[in-house]
Amino acid sequence: MFIELDFESKTPIYTQLKHEIIAGIARNEIALGEGLPSVRSLAADLGINLHTVNKAYQQLKQEGFILIHRQKGVVVNPDGVTPADETYYADLKETLRPSIAEAVCRGMSEEDYVSLIQDIFKEFKKGEKK
Amino acid sequence: MFIELDFESKTPIYTQLKHEIIAGIARNEIALGEGLPSVRSLAADLGINLHTVNKAYQQLKQEGFILIHRQKGVVVNPDGVTPADETYYADLKETLRPSIAEAVCRGMSEEDYVSLIQDIFKEFKKGEKK
Repeated sequence: MFIELDFESKTPIYTQLKHEIIAGIARNEIALGEGLPSVRSLAADLGINLHTVNKAYQQLKQEGFILIHRQKGVVVNPDGVTPADETYYADLKETLRPSIAEAVCRGMSEEDYVSLIQDIFKEFKKGEKK
Repeated sequence: MFIELDFESKTPIYTQLKHEIIAGIARNEIALGEGLPSVRSLAADLGINLHTVNKAYQQLKQEGFILIHRQKGVVVNPDGVTPADETYYADLKETLRPSIAEAVCRGMSEEDYVSLIQDIFKEFKKGEKK
């Protein structure tokens, strides 16, 4: 898995790391059940603080993306994260609404917004298992 | 304009207030050039702290949604906010990518995601000027 961090970004490093791992799972670059590097080793590889990796892993664990075993170490949840349900859709709608409100204010059309969404979905489909 | 705040939400109140005002502009409930209540009066109306309103207004000013005149008070930017440009599209893509990665992990289809987007756009079209 290739993890790219932007140290100039306003997004905290632990959030970026979390996003990169979720994106890796979405692109099937990391398989369900697959092991992830230990906190120590990932921190060393990326040249970031142990606590930063730990924070990302703890959030991923809490959200059900990974399991942290005392012995087996860190693995991607073999059952996968909880599938989208009504609560997830409702939360997603709440999250997207401000972004769409701003887009409307900036004169962005629904078609352009949808086409941007479709472009991003394409990025994740490239890596789909055949 | 109807401002709804959720005091139980994890989203800070100033962010919610900012989002509500942007949504009001997107729905044409607040016209370009229209005056907004003073910090003091909005804080009193909503039962929130002056600093909270001030923080929301300062961010809206910085992002170009409103102007703060010493005499005329707070008005919605009569020229409207800067229209979407390449930088905006690029930033929006960066912002949406993690949300879509998560949706893919949760087995949400592109069609379902797009349909959610279209539902939200509909909310903003209801108020469109005829």
